[in-house]
Amino acid sequence: MAPGPVISSSRIEPRIAVAGVGGYAGGELARLLMRHPREAAREALFLGRGAEESAPVRLSELHPMLTADPSIKAFPFDWKLLEQERVNVLLLATPHETSRAWAPKALERGMRVIDLSGAWRLREPENASVYKLHDEDLVKTKALLEEAVYGLPELHRDAILSARLVANPGCYATSVILALAPLVRAGLLDLDRGIVCDAKSGVSGAGKTPTVSTHFMYAADNLSAYSVFGHRHTGELLEQLCLSEKQIQFTPHLLPIPRGILSTIYFWLKQPSDASAVVDDMRSFYRGCPFVRVREAGTLPQIQHVVHTNFCDLGLVVDNDGDRVVLVACLDNLLKGAAGQAVQNLNLMCGWNEPEGLL
Amino acid sequence: MAPGPVISSSRIEPRIAVAGVGGYAGGELARLLMRHPREAAREALFLGRGAEESAPVRLSELHPMLTADPSIKAFPFDWKLLEQERVNVLLLATPHETSRAWAPKALERGMRVIDLSGAWRLREPENASVYKLHDEDLVKTKALLEEAVYGLPELHRDAILSARLVANPGCYATSVILALAPLVRAGLLDLDRGIVCDAKSGVSGAGKTPTVSTHFMYAADNLSAYSVFGHRHTGELLEQLCLSEKQIQFTPHLLPIPRGILSTIYFWLKQPSDASAVVDDMRSFYRGCPFVRVREAGTLPQIQHVVHTNFCDLGLVVDNDGDRVVLVACLDNLLKGAAGQAVQNLNLMCGWNEPEGLL
Amino acid sequence: MAPGPVISSSRIEPRIAVAGVGGYAGGELARLLMRHPREAAREALFLGRGAEESAPVRLSELHPMLTADPSIKAFPFDWKLLEQERVNVLLLATPHETSRAWAPKALERGMRVIDLSGAWRLREPENASVYKLHDEDLVKTKALLEEAVYGLPELHRDAILSARLVANPGCYATSVILALAPLVRAGLLDLDRGIVCDAKSGVSGAGKTPTVSTHFMYAADNLSAYSVFGHRHTGELLEQLCLSEKQIQFTPHLLPIPRGILSTIYFWLKQPSDASAVVDDMRSFYRGCPFVRVREAGTLPQIQHVVHTNFCDLGLVVDNDGDRVVLVACLDNLLKGAAGQAVQNLNLMCGWNEPEGLL
Amino acid sequence: MAPGPVISSSRIEPRIAVAGVGGYAGGELARLLMRHPREAAREALFLGRGAEESAPVRLSELHPMLTADPSIKAFPFDWKLLEQERVNVLLLATPHETSRAWAPKALERGMRVIDLSGAWRLREPENASVYKLHDEDLVKTKALLEEAVYGLPELHRDAILSARLVANPGCYATSVILALAPLVRAGLLDLDRGIVCDAKSGVSGAGKTPTVSTHFMYAADNLSAYSVFGHRHTGELLEQLCLSEKQIQFTPHLLPIPRGILSTIYFWLKQPSDASAVVDDMRSFYRGCPFVRVREAGTLPQIQHVVHTNFCDLGLVVDNDGDRVVLVACLDNLLKGAAGQAVQNLNLMCGWNEPEGLL
Repeated sequence: MAPGPVISSSRIEPRIAVAGVGGYAGGELARLLMRHPREAAREALFLGRGAEESAPVRLSELHPMLTADPSIKAFPFDWKLLEQERVNVLLLATPHETSRAWAPKALERGMRVIDLSGAWRLREPENASVYKLHDEDLVKTKALLEEAVYGLPELHRDAILSARLVANPGCYATSVILALAPLVRAGLLDLDRGIVCDAKSGVSGAGKTPTVSTHFMYAADNLSAYSVFGHRHTGELLEQLCLSEKQIQFTPHLLPIPRGILSTIYFWLKQPSDASAVVDDMRSFYRGCPFVRVREAGTLPQIQHVVHTNFCDLGLVVDNDGDRVVLVACLDNLLKGAAGQAVQNLNLMCGWNEPEGLL
Repeated sequence: MAPGPVISSSRIEPRIAVAGVGGYAGGELARLLMRHPREAAREALFLGRGAEESAPVRLSELHPMLTADPSIKAFPFDWKLLEQERVNVLLLATPHETSRAWAPKALERGMRVIDLSGAWRLREPENASVYKLHDEDLVKTKALLEEAVYGLPELHRDAILSARLVANPGCYATSVILALAPLVRAGLLDLDRGIVCDAKSGVSGAGKTPTVSTHFMYAADNLSAYSVFGHRHTGELLEQLCLSEKQIQFTPHLLPIPRGILSTIYFWLKQPSDASAVVDDMRSFYRGCPFVRVREAGTLPQIQHVVHTNFCDLGLVVDNDGDRVVLVACLDNLLKGAAGQAVQNLNLMCGWNEPEGLL
Repeated sequence: MAPGPVISSSRIEPRIAVAGVGGYAGGELARLLMRHPREAAREALFLGRGAEESAPVRLSELHPMLTADPSIKAFPFDWKLLEQERVNVLLLATPHETSRAWAPKALERGMRVIDLSGAWRLREPENASVYKLHDEDLVKTKALLEEAVYGLPELHRDAILSARLVANPGCYATSVILALAPLVRAGLLDLDRGIVCDAKSGVSGAGKTPTVSTHFMYAADNLSAYSVFGHRHTGELLEQLCLSEKQIQFTPHLLPIPRGILSTIYFWLKQPSDASAVVDDMRSFYRGCPFVRVREAGTLPQIQHVVHTNFCDLGLVVDNDGDRVVLVACLDNLLKGAAGQAVQNLNLMCGWNEPEGLL
Repeated sequence: MAPGPVISSSRIEPRIAVAGVGGYAGGELARLLMRHPREAAREALFLGRGAEESAPVRLSELHPMLTADPSIKAFPFDWKLLEQERVNVLLLATPHETSRAWAPKALERGMRVIDLSGAWRLREPENASVYKLHDEDLVKTKALLEEAVYGLPELHRDAILSARLVANPGCYATSVILALAPLVRAGLLDLDRGIVCDAKSGVSGAGKTPTVSTHFMYAADNLSAYSVFGHRHTGELLEQLCLSEKQIQFTPHLLPIPRGILSTIYFWLKQPSDASAVVDDMRSFYRGCPFVRVREAGTLPQIQHVVHTNFCDLGLVVDNDGDRVVLVACLDNLLKGAAGQAVQNLNLMCGWNEPEGLL
């Protein structure tokens, strides 16, 4: 498959659908779209994820908090329904295997796709191998991986505007990449000394399926590290920040809270500096980015500052000698880490204002 | 089967086993027994629940908090092992179907049984029907139900001393029965006006199997009522307090905490009284009971006062006219509501001091 | 002071201010107004509560989650500033003593007032006595108490439209009154048997000042009943539902969650009925009310269904004989129980659509 | 003051007192001592911290969970009472200013002291300066600082046996020092690359006084880093591990849980190795230490594994190349991080078995 034609993002009236509306990210997508100022967003079609579905169900049964309107339904996933409704933008809040299978089919049908899974984020085969994806057509997959745009608007806004396939970033990855990109790109870090990212996430990041580690008794009053030296989001950090594996160490932890990520990032500066100078650099980098807030030098964000918002908050402290930095990034894993970022991408792809429906 | 012979509780050296050590109540039993002052308790044998077991596992794998000693193991459930180890007291922390099947077999082998499930608590068939138990031998079952002692030491201490089969009470039921027994027995309540029991429990009460309602995202930051007009423990209240169904209304709620029960109980007095008089009555009733604490008149217990203890705390407020009472009962559902109460019964059955290993 | 003239609610261009923006309800007011579709709402002026204030502070310092715009400030409370900015609608998210003092002064200056405290909710002196308010001018106070409209739009919509002084209801009271009003007004309850309201609230209901009972170690992993037979919101239930003190029993509990209220309400029906019939009655009563959702017969709402929304969800179960009812009401104490309801009242008073900015 | 005579730890019958029993650590001391197998422990005297005290209060008023025995009292702090009761071992669970003032007075009166504050832990003036302590007699203080033994039995058991003044370690410091001591002492770490300690603690670590950051609404559903490059426990790491300030970076975070610490520690090995070899080294180092559990290579402890126990659990993962290590240490900040460790020291000082009353 050849790369698709350049798409003028505002040309076509969008007809939007969400697949996988039953999960946490799907539910947040529904909430955001139903209160979006654009009618095309409010009229989005909601679908399941192609499993355990036989009949439409009320959205309010899947997500009782969402709406008082019993007429809003979620339909079993069905390509015919998508075609019949002339859907041309499909958001996939589906498992990565499903996304890997469905994105090409959607593109073939002329839809643009925003995929919230990890299926299309990684170009390097060794990074992607953690997902154990099986491809029917390796050539086509490779071409699509080339074409796919990593959906972090703060880094790839222009490419997103006209993208056919947007790979919405991982929640942890968003926090770390937004924290480090300005400094890594400016060459301020002493990469020889390495970067340590100690990240902590609420339980919604583990998905809706009941498992041993999402049991209340496991997660509550607890903290645990997991996937040490092997978390799936590591590849996104390496690729987006152009780092080698030994230069960055990423360890996630499961927090006893429903939602929110805090990443504490440790590194050394190449040249001594102070917090104000680094903050200024970061603010310059994110000028015009409505969802990145860089705090005053020496002050740090907390998870509560960002939960239920689409903001990624950044803050840092530099030690007295100006060489060591502790940088903290916070976001809501279901919003800036998933559904909010997807709507941000949707807004760009539809030619709408980036922050519409997200403030 | 005829009722067994009267057992002199201290005659035989006890050889104790716990079946179902992998669950929450089983884990607490192991913790209590391993630090019990009696050697026979500390040497208890730990077994599984007869499912998904093929080889011994370290107790510390099932419950990493329990011990530093890697030699302590949990064995697959096995009657031969029980016989070989000459076990004569068996604690069943097993599902009620399992307990219904195993208790008679244990009794036949000369063991005394303390069962933590609901299998042997209810004599009235309509109360027991909620458990949907199937009996191979209805006559034997009926005889055993007649013989089984409801294991609430504060009400049935003498019978427990020599019992062959003790039905350890339900966690909710323990809180409500201990709260109401002194007053109901003294005929102080206006039963025509009815009693309302609004009970709340932590998530451990729902067991270790991951389900929709034990998912952290379901239980955390939430509260929900369930089993309205149909909770399994209702029958225990009716039978132990000699009430009819319309005289007491019991509604449980799922609290976003790991453990603890608080029951708020509303009733009218037949004759106006005051809190001090009622507290005095309750304290007289529980004289000599080491695990019931009745608070000063007008003050109420909280879940934190009893969690990780075997106490049931009671407190009450009477309105200015002396006719309406709010009575609050708190306990730890895994201790006084399960494993702690079982050890209390075990102590009595072995001729030990009632509070040994529980303070 | 004579009752003010009838106000045509849409006549004047509103100029809105919020006093007490630093508290939890004040912060939610700011959040709701800043994303309100009406420009007049988005341009609201934010003020403190007249204590510990000397200079403007950034709103983002008081509530870091609120905004990225550093130009939005909260000003020390100042009548001159209010006049200078020609404020004509003042929302008071202030302690009840402050509200009692300020509301008359605001009315004298021609402002309409929505007061979120308990200062103006209760007409019966014995009910109001719990607030221990001191009035400089008892005659004026009495006249204003007569004039004040209880700001529950579902019961008093018409009066709110033209009200000068709206007393925004208590959070607990909103849940109980919305649950019971349809049935009490229709005379369906057997009031002789009494109503029991067992209510549970998250910690935000206790306010922002650090105290023993808002300490994390006190509230977390705990549950406690408080203010038994003496909670301030009881008077609202009595007055709004026209009940006598012995007919309803209200007991609040402190839940270990940030926000949300669940009230479990127990009563007997005069005539046997079933859940569907009662649900139908309630749905008829709330036809046209966008923020009351009555669930299917036999199903119950949970706190998670309403948190971060302005909905009050109601659900009920009737026992097999059709005479006993368990009715559950849930709402977010900071939204439908405070700031959301205040904006609902504001919308009505400004001639806007009732749900604007609240869905 | 000259260093005291060598004390034969089992010579004198201990008469024990706890000052500051009203705080969290004081409450845990009371709980541990009351159920200790040694009568001298069970008969400990409980005292306040010398402020806001005028009369004895029941221990059960300070800590309602502790006991059913209303005769157990906490007395206002009083030197005369200590002398009258011939107290010869004093545990200070008091603020560091108080401990700095009282420890010398207790030593003068012939008592041995276990101090749970930071007052006597640090020898280097620049490390100690964070406590802003004022000394009346600098010479005496310096001598006592020389004499004081850092109360980590795993490192200083012999000195503790006969110590007059034991400085019970900080909770964070205990976790990090126990994790790193075996490896640092064996010279296995590449110190040039630095060590990062990302530590997280439950709220009880912040003490009982209600403050902004112990408010439930601040701590719940949140995570925040604090005291970056300036936490008081950093000095203990430097002194006990003989590291320089640039070699170790310590950042604490406030977890939304009542108790427990997890420290995630990142470093490089000098020579490539694997997890099993490192685990073996650690197990050798801690042979004979009943409260340090080193997990199987490649597996990590969690906070739940240690809460309500005196264990410090350690576990580690080494990357594929054998050069980078993630080492996790967990403990209960009120037990192994405070009261449990104090009782461990007490046991040693009294000539009792180290783990008595702690398993």
